[in-house]
Amino acid sequence: MFDKDYKKPEEALKLILKSIGDLTKDSETIPIEEAYQRILAEDIHSSEDLPGFDRCTVDGYALIATDTFGAKDTNPVYLEAIGEVFMGEETNLRVNRGQCVKIPTGGMLPDGADAVIMFEHTQQISENLIEVLRSLSVGENVISRDEDIKKGELILKKGSQLRSQDIGAFAGLGITNISVFKKPIVSIISTGDEIVPASSPIKIGQVRDINSYSLDGLIRQRGGITKKIGIIKDNYDEIKRAFSYALSISDIVLISGGTSAGVKDMTSRIINDTGKPGVLFHGVAMKPGKPLIAGLVDSKPVFGLPGHPSAIFVSFDKFIRPVIENIAGYKSTKNIDRTIKASISKSIASSMGREDHIRVSLEKKSDGTYLAHPIFGKSGLITTLVSADGIVIIDEDSLGLDAGDEVTVRLF
Amino acid sequence: MFDKDYKKPEEALKLILKSIGDLTKDSETIPIEEAYQRILAEDIHSSEDLPGFDRCTVDGYALIATDTFGAKDTNPVYLEAIGEVFMGEETNLRVNRGQCVKIPTGGMLPDGADAVIMFEHTQQISENLIEVLRSLSVGENVISRDEDIKKGELILKKGSQLRSQDIGAFAGLGITNISVFKKPIVSIISTGDEIVPASSPIKIGQVRDINSYSLDGLIRQRGGITKKIGIIKDNYDEIKRAFSYALSISDIVLISGGTSAGVKDMTSRIINDTGKPGVLFHGVAMKPGKPLIAGLVDSKPVFGLPGHPSAIFVSFDKFIRPVIENIAGYKSTKNIDRTIKASISKSIASSMGREDHIRVSLEKKSDGTYLAHPIFGKSGLITTLVSADGIVIIDEDSLGLDAGDEVTVRLF
Repeated sequence: MFDKDYKKPEEALKLILKSIGDLTKDSETIPIEEAYQRILAEDIHSSEDLPGFDRCTVDGYALIATDTFGAKDTNPVYLEAIGEVFMGEETNLRVNRGQCVKIPTGGMLPDGADAVIMFEHTQQISENLIEVLRSLSVGENVISRDEDIKKGELILKKGSQLRSQDIGAFAGLGITNISVFKKPIVSIISTGDEIVPASSPIKIGQVRDINSYSLDGLIRQRGGITKKIGIIKDNYDEIKRAFSYALSISDIVLISGGTSAGVKDMTSRIINDTGKPGVLFHGVAMKPGKPLIAGLVDSKPVFGLPGHPSAIFVSFDKFIRPVIENIAGYKSTKNIDRTIKASISKSIASSMGREDHIRVSLEKKSDGTYLAHPIFGKSGLITTLVSADGIVIIDEDSLGLDAGDEVTVRLF
Repeated sequence: MFDKDYKKPEEALKLILKSIGDLTKDSETIPIEEAYQRILAEDIHSSEDLPGFDRCTVDGYALIATDTFGAKDTNPVYLEAIGEVFMGEETNLRVNRGQCVKIPTGGMLPDGADAVIMFEHTQQISENLIEVLRSLSVGENVISRDEDIKKGELILKKGSQLRSQDIGAFAGLGITNISVFKKPIVSIISTGDEIVPASSPIKIGQVRDINSYSLDGLIRQRGGITKKIGIIKDNYDEIKRAFSYALSISDIVLISGGTSAGVKDMTSRIINDTGKPGVLFHGVAMKPGKPLIAGLVDSKPVFGLPGHPSAIFVSFDKFIRPVIENIAGYKSTKNIDRTIKASISKSIASSMGREDHIRVSLEKKSDGTYLAHPIFGKSGLITTLVSADGIVIIDEDSLGLDAGDEVTVRLF
């Protein structure tokens, strides 16, 4: 069979992750202003209650709830207004039975009060006399001093990727510096006698370096830092030298190109000759992306990537993304796939034993559901990716999809 | 009814977008290395064919397909090997009937040849004699000179948000600088006598400025630049001065806090007193987020945001995000919602005429589907957002959800 000698994708991924173990990077302390999307390197506990005082959530009168029992439009309760709370200020007022205190939204609840009635449900009869037209229960329109966050409470776990609201919570607690994991550094070596820089005019037979540009965005999207080592000719010594340099400055090394028959043994040999354990596997039962090489050199994961742009994307998503996430420290982040359901517009055949990654473009129908149009075209064509919105995976046990089948689209 | 006086969310959004019209910013030219996630300000056409020459996609022999018709293991065809193509080099070889040329993956197809047979499907009999064991069709294992991109072809439309593969395509075409729209500048004015900076210790009655931190991440996520104007006391003159300054340096102004009864008229008055047309509406039939103010001053959209963290999130997603996207120039980008389907774990009641935004936390079940757990809690609590993975919207015509109902979760 076509793919018999190649590793199954899931097994290949497990082998990589098991081999590299936990390579999470050191941490660094940064201000929360710079923490958006970074990965927390410590558990964050609150050092105080939030809001820290009983806080009113409406504009109205603070009072004692039991005083209002039975109050309605036709049977109001009368309370004595004894003063006013001002925004952002502590109050020394104390509410006793039969009394109330004027209070703004966000104001501090005075001692004795346990609820706040909105202005709309009162009538001011005189300067000091308020008519209450509704019954309140204890705690109504009040946030208690530790209702949002209790002192000592675990706010966020080590390994969480920080979102807007998380940083807001830190600000609320007065936590202005936090410890995050350093970003993984991913080096890219572009190989191939035919590859020239993007800025170069091309002669017949040459192609510009597409993949280091595509990979850069993918790496950044996962929180990595890209180092482009440059374009290296298909020469053992030159690639080996570039590879050793890349290993010395980065956490992951990607060698783009150089995995097909002509030079593939060279990439494997260089990996094996540079350090232990060397190549973990060469070839996965997956299309595109079949000629992938994965290895480990001096505890650093290294990959030999096929030269085709589509193969780069699929290999990255399946194998390199999880490795970057491991090193970046994403441990407690829920991995909620960015997927949507769609119905596939055309039938697609697939071989047993091979995982097919089909590029699709999405069309939103008038009923709000999506139609996924498969993009056929050789995996060497960058345009098939430019017109795609995502990927549909046909797993290795499937013979394909029928038009109209529901599919899960992994969005780019 | 509770929400009768408030605008319906969809109508409110339409009113805002219609009122502001097209405010897309000027463009700037940047290198493609910096273009990831920026918005294209020009249509990009190709100035050349890609790959630019007929390119081989396997290691093998270039030949004339008709020579191989009928070839199989038991009935091979014999071809004369007349030479070799080298990677990245132009070739002057010409393949005639009965001939073939050795070629590496990515090599330039020699004149006369129209297909390439893989090494695996050949046997080398002598130095110059090759046995072909398969039939090929014309074009097999070849990418033609303009198969990826034709000279003059539209690659990407103005208004597209640039992804990794788009930048890869530019690199492939030798396009190293492109024109993108400038990023919208969004100012945040935090108001409230009780608000203190995140770095400040707090006294009873005070709260730290959570919202400018939460908003910063949301703005950046949509490609905007945040300018924090600072924390301003609830004073007409001070807020008006800060507002005028913010208008002078930004494209959108957000006033956080100051929309509840005590001071809401002040925010509305300041907007109306600063320029025309002023306030567009005050209040939407939505929970949380009801007290939103939207306005337009000297052609710049301005918003008065409720102080509660959850209300900030919901208002941002519903109203401010589309406005930022309008100004940022996202015109041709398909707006594929980042949503997943889940089943709701508890019943939730909702009022007719009000759009409810329910925070949910997601649990992945063993069968790969998701359970959405509603997070109950006052909208003033930042923790309800920290523990949430997304939002479920219950529309204004619905009375609520039953446990087990399928829901669409908008992911944060």
